Amino acid sequence: MAKLGFLMAGACALVLAQASLAAPADQKANEAAFDAGVSSQDQMDWLKTMSSAPNHVGSPHDKANAEFILAKFKEWGWDAKIETFQVLYPTPISTTVEMVAPEKIVLGGQEPAVPGDDTSTNLAGALPPYVAFQGDGDVTGDLVYVNYGLPDDYKALERRGIDVKGKIVIARYGAGWRGLKPKLAQEHGAIGCIIYSDPQQDGYGDGDVYPKGGARPDFGVQRGSVADMTVYPGDPLTPGVGATADAKRLDRKDAVTILKIPVLPMSYGDASKLLSRLGGPLVAGGAQGGLPIAYHTGGDGKVQVHLAVKSEWSLKTVYDVIATLKGSQYPDQWVVRGNHHDGWVFGASDPLSGNVAMLSEAKALGGLWKQGWRPKRTIVYASWDAEEPMLLGSTEWAETHAAELKAKAVIYINTDGNGRGFLGAEGSHDFQHLVNSVAADVTDPQTGVSVAERSRAGVRVRAYDKIGQVSEAALAAAEKGGDLPIGALGSGSDYSAYLQHLGLPALNIGFGGEDESGGVYHSVYDSYHHFTTFDDPGLKYGAALSKTVGRLVLRVADSDTPPQRFGDFADTVSTYLTEVKKLAEDRRTEDRKREKLLTDKAFLLASDPTKPVAPVGAEAKTPHVELAALEDAVDHLKAAAAAYDSAYADKGGKLDQARRVKLNAQLRDIDQLLLDERGLPGRPWYKHMIYAPGRFTGYGAKTLPGVREAIEERRFDDANVYAGRTAKVLDAYAARLEAAKATIEGK
Amino acid sequence: MAKLGFLMAGACALVLAQASLAAPADQKANEAAFDAGVSSQDQMDWLKTMSSAPNHVGSPHDKANAEFILAKFKEWGWDAKIETFQVLYPTPISTTVEMVAPEKIVLGGQEPAVPGDDTSTNLAGALPPYVAFQGDGDVTGDLVYVNYGLPDDYKALERRGIDVKGKIVIARYGAGWRGLKPKLAQEHGAIGCIIYSDPQQDGYGDGDVYPKGGARPDFGVQRGSVADMTVYPGDPLTPGVGATADAKRLDRKDAVTILKIPVLPMSYGDASKLLSRLGGPLVAGGAQGGLPIAYHTGGDGKVQVHLAVKSEWSLKTVYDVIATLKGSQYPDQWVVRGNHHDGWVFGASDPLSGNVAMLSEAKALGGLWKQGWRPKRTIVYASWDAEEPMLLGSTEWAETHAAELKAKAVIYINTDGNGRGFLGAEGSHDFQHLVNSVAADVTDPQTGVSVAERSRAGVRVRAYDKIGQVSEAALAAAEKGGDLPIGALGSGSDYSAYLQHLGLPALNIGFGGEDESGGVYHSVYDSYHHFTTFDDPGLKYGAALSKTVGRLVLRVADSDTPPQRFGDFADTVSTYLTEVKKLAEDRRTEDRKREKLLTDKAFLLASDPTKPVAPVGAEAKTPHVELAALEDAVDHLKAAAAAYDSAYADKGGKLDQARRVKLNAQLRDIDQLLLDERGLPGRPWYKHMIYAPGRFTGYGAKTLPGVREAIEERRFDDANVYAGRTAKVLDAYAARLEAAKATIEGK
Repeated sequence: MAKLGFLMAGACALVLAQASLAAPADQKANEAAFDAGVSSQDQMDWLKTMSSAPNHVGSPHDKANAEFILAKFKEWGWDAKIETFQVLYPTPISTTVEMVAPEKIVLGGQEPAVPGDDTSTNLAGALPPYVAFQGDGDVTGDLVYVNYGLPDDYKALERRGIDVKGKIVIARYGAGWRGLKPKLAQEHGAIGCIIYSDPQQDGYGDGDVYPKGGARPDFGVQRGSVADMTVYPGDPLTPGVGATADAKRLDRKDAVTILKIPVLPMSYGDASKLLSRLGGPLVAGGAQGGLPIAYHTGGDGKVQVHLAVKSEWSLKTVYDVIATLKGSQYPDQWVVRGNHHDGWVFGASDPLSGNVAMLSEAKALGGLWKQGWRPKRTIVYASWDAEEPMLLGSTEWAETHAAELKAKAVIYINTDGNGRGFLGAEGSHDFQHLVNSVAADVTDPQTGVSVAERSRAGVRVRAYDKIGQVSEAALAAAEKGGDLPIGALGSGSDYSAYLQHLGLPALNIGFGGEDESGGVYHSVYDSYHHFTTFDDPGLKYGAALSKTVGRLVLRVADSDTPPQRFGDFADTVSTYLTEVKKLAEDRRTEDRKREKLLTDKAFLLASDPTKPVAPVGAEAKTPHVELAALEDAVDHLKAAAAAYDSAYADKGGKLDQARRVKLNAQLRDIDQLLLDERGLPGRPWYKHMIYAPGRFTGYGAKTLPGVREAIEERRFDDANVYAGRTAKVLDAYAARLEAAKATIEGK
Repeated sequence: MAKLGFLMAGACALVLAQASLAAPADQKANEAAFDAGVSSQDQMDWLKTMSSAPNHVGSPHDKANAEFILAKFKEWGWDAKIETFQVLYPTPISTTVEMVAPEKIVLGGQEPAVPGDDTSTNLAGALPPYVAFQGDGDVTGDLVYVNYGLPDDYKALERRGIDVKGKIVIARYGAGWRGLKPKLAQEHGAIGCIIYSDPQQDGYGDGDVYPKGGARPDFGVQRGSVADMTVYPGDPLTPGVGATADAKRLDRKDAVTILKIPVLPMSYGDASKLLSRLGGPLVAGGAQGGLPIAYHTGGDGKVQVHLAVKSEWSLKTVYDVIATLKGSQYPDQWVVRGNHHDGWVFGASDPLSGNVAMLSEAKALGGLWKQGWRPKRTIVYASWDAEEPMLLGSTEWAETHAAELKAKAVIYINTDGNGRGFLGAEGSHDFQHLVNSVAADVTDPQTGVSVAERSRAGVRVRAYDKIGQVSEAALAAAEKGGDLPIGALGSGSDYSAYLQHLGLPALNIGFGGEDESGGVYHSVYDSYHHFTTFDDPGLKYGAALSKTVGRLVLRVADSDTPPQRFGDFADTVSTYLTEVKKLAEDRRTEDRKREKLLTDKAFLLASDPTKPVAPVGAEAKTPHVELAALEDAVDHLKAAAAAYDSAYADKGGKLDQARRVKLNAQLRDIDQLLLDERGLPGRPWYKHMIYAPGRFTGYGAKTLPGVREAIEERRFDDANVYAGRTAKVLDAYAARLEAAKATIEGK
């Protein structure tokens, strides 16, 4: 569902100190045999078949794809089955959006056919543009342009005297997750919401539009889910438990993740007809988009819109394909790897490009199996259904099998849509070095160097050419040829339940940055034609993804002890704490400045009387947060991690079997110690104290979320409470490392 | 001609240590009487008359305006005359620009009438869109979009395999001065150049377009001069000497400031027809503008343009109005103050809004004179002609009267177009505190607080709201209620010859930031209607400008010793030196990074093979510059300035007349010590070692230019030479301050 925020993950393994995790010779041979089983042509064939018809949840082709995948797994020697769930999944009966004043113009409807894109010419059975889990309704009202529709946008509007009560808002995609826009509109009293793709970021501002290029054409629309996943993902009716046939379900009206107001997505071709007619003041500078007009806020009654959505709300069947290769030595230690198979329409890029890469891995692993190889640990592959409406297939499976997963799973490795370009990786930082080690051993299809080396070059050149933002840490690592940092996981794909609800370490992997899949994201044009023309011609990066993830799976499955490096995790958490302290200090400075500006009436004096902007509102001062215990815990973690890593590097290769078993047991669930069962404030489903999707960023991660978001949102009591809780989980983690070190040392 | 880069200048005078320059009681009374003579209604009447017909150089109405101004000065009791010069000034006989492939579309021509803008309906005698001092020619060629057409843009194009040899370039206005674009195009081998206004900065991206709002409509065109003023301004045929009737003149072909290739300006309505058809690769990210298309570089032969300009190159007569009020005590010490009167078409904002404010000052000073007041120093007011083609009127007068000006002038104070908003000030930093003191005593028309207080509020709010860029120094000063820094002078208005050629201290003053004059800059629509609707309704800021500049004139003219504070100059120069050292250090770091990137082939590895970007070119390493003497000189200056300021604060009020005369003589020409008669590298006309227009910024100032530009342009020998020369002038300046201090102390 989500595009990986494609920066680089990079690698090394040439530095001597890191050699301890490099692949041994027999593993190298096994990986070479694995690579021989990976075929871009296979992936192209499967992609063409699987993306040949609409494959959204409940569609015949989605079920057919699940059965196709099941058959393939079986053919390749896997123990495979389909598990089903019954989930709430609304599909539109009717969608209406039209301007009714100053003139009547009917908008919306299905996206048109595009010459050369064969599947776009036959949309029978395809979903029209809509967003799942909006609130059905039929409203007419004044239109207000709210820019990205995020909290700062409402503050800017308020200072300009614009409110949205009783009105319909139109927000552009971007800057924060889709679902936050109607949620915040609803909270501000709006009666409806339109979300459109602005061409500045997602249209001609991004390149030539489809079909000349890959960027979004003026009639392209982004579908998506607006279920409030910041509270919990998965089936809205079964929070925390699997949506099995006999599960206890909430009444739909009590499901807090379903919005209350009608919402529709829109193309910029349609949006321009509305935005060009808006009255009211000019927008604040940053809200001007890429349409050839001066953007206005509206809200003056000039433009009236009629918006109506009616959905069919029955339960639908979800088809998760689950396939297993049983471990020879540690059958009750599972390496879990998944990618979803449902799309919004044809879903060639999202998700099928990742799914066919996963199938290549499965075929190659099956080939090894047939040659007699047996993994030490059990390998579980999952092709999820119903990711698009809000991670339903993966979440319901995780909730159903929670106890077993917590008792057995070693890691969850996810992919989603894939494309041409650079390796991107996010996840649990104890596996950061493993990702880098693998990246050093996979060849980039375009340059012939390792994907790690290309990533480092990319980071350095982007910094030199001032393209985008490159973190100082990434640049420093790239320049010295070291491990590139991996990102933190927020949400937007199927890892969420495994990481944030169950506490498994997780990775999310993909290539991208040179593809143009963003231009057809969640539209009819995310097709085989677009994908093989603009995103990954020849699926060379599909094969690279298989080789990358295959290595991750093999190295975890076949290692004596899974290859974690805890110093990376400790250093990263230390960085997060530094950020949080800086955040609090910056807030205090800003608080002082704001108070003085208000006292001095500076906002009034600086405001243009012909375009008045009211002062910002007064705010409580940000106090100092009680961080001593958290600082101590981070120190504890750093010391324990360094000591463990050093002890393992010295003696980890020579453990006797009893100590090996004990050590593995100590480490297998160490990441689960990062959970606090009470969860985060207002959203107990999210239990991880280090990684969470942001309440106001959505897909974007917030790290040390209990503390960081409390400071950001001025919940200062929560900040103190969660500083303490976060300290506790880190202390427990550090203590476990100390115990594991003692095991290594025979104590 | 130039828009003041409107930041704020701010003020204080409440801080005790600064009280020494505050106006004494009798001066306050005199200033109140002066204010009573300033009338917004006068300014509106004069503006309407003067902007009623085209008033470019050589037009009947331009001459009529000079005569009108002359008559007014005489009516108000001034000793006034018109001085004429004979200057080269080309006017177009024919301008042709058309697309000839892939289809024929005729472009260009005069701007159309706009309903409600009366003067736009009668354009008899108006200049069509053109740029002065381009090179006549008739060319047809392939079109290349070069973004802003500055050095970095050519580097970006070169890395994408695009050159402009034998082609016509189209550059957008912005990021650097107009004339650099065709000059650099010519240097890169282009045969013609189009400069257009992109709507991202100058059109709907800036607000509602005229006549609904004040922003540039799609048919608006910016005229201007492209004479290469980075070498010298003024008449191209008479560098360094006045263009009197009998002056020795260069042959036109030998005048280096006249370009060799034909150039025309263009509206974005026309430019979109060309840009939307260009082939070639997509532009690099930053070159995408505000038209609703994906911008391409062109250069692939797809779009062919025919561009032809033929001009009439006779000498034209320039009418400078010079008016004097003779000083009673120091008649041979002159306060010179000017604003030009020629426009591109009607010129309501640029320059007449500033000229009518100057006339208000002249009327008010005339009123004081009639009441018996006599300034201690001689006041010289000048209404310049021919500023637009490249500061001709002011430069020729300065060159003609150079010896007398160097012997008598105390300061040159300039204004140009004015508008609603915040005070902007640039100039010689020994007068920074005077500007701040005056700003503390002038009331802002919209808020009722002083313009200084409003400026400080503006700086603080812009920083808080993250609008534009606010320097740390300005923010710190605004927060503590201190003097706001004034900017350095580059070029773009009539101060240039006085400051950079003659070495007089100079100030350039104006209000702006809330006007919309940028949207009609140098177009037919810079009209009375636009100005009184969108720029300064009621000319309230015209009156504020008169009160501000009037105070500056009065305080310099009537002071015992002109109110300079040398510590401000010393501190500012010290800041510049810090910047130059950082520049050199940053360059060395960049050099090292670039070399390593090239060695590692990182550019090749990071480049997208489908959109190849070649590595940057290798460059010589930036060596350490011999800055020791310059560092010592700055230390010397800081010590001498602090000592002088302190001595004057202690004893400056109690000097006997002999010492006063001696002191004034020592200080009157102190700024002239900042000249080196050999001038800057390759441009000996520019003699000032502290302030210059940038060779690659144009209007934008470069400070410590001999050193800074040499480092930027990798002329490392020049850097060492000019570090020494700059040190020498600063040492001389410091020594003069020491001598002046000795005078105060009776030594």
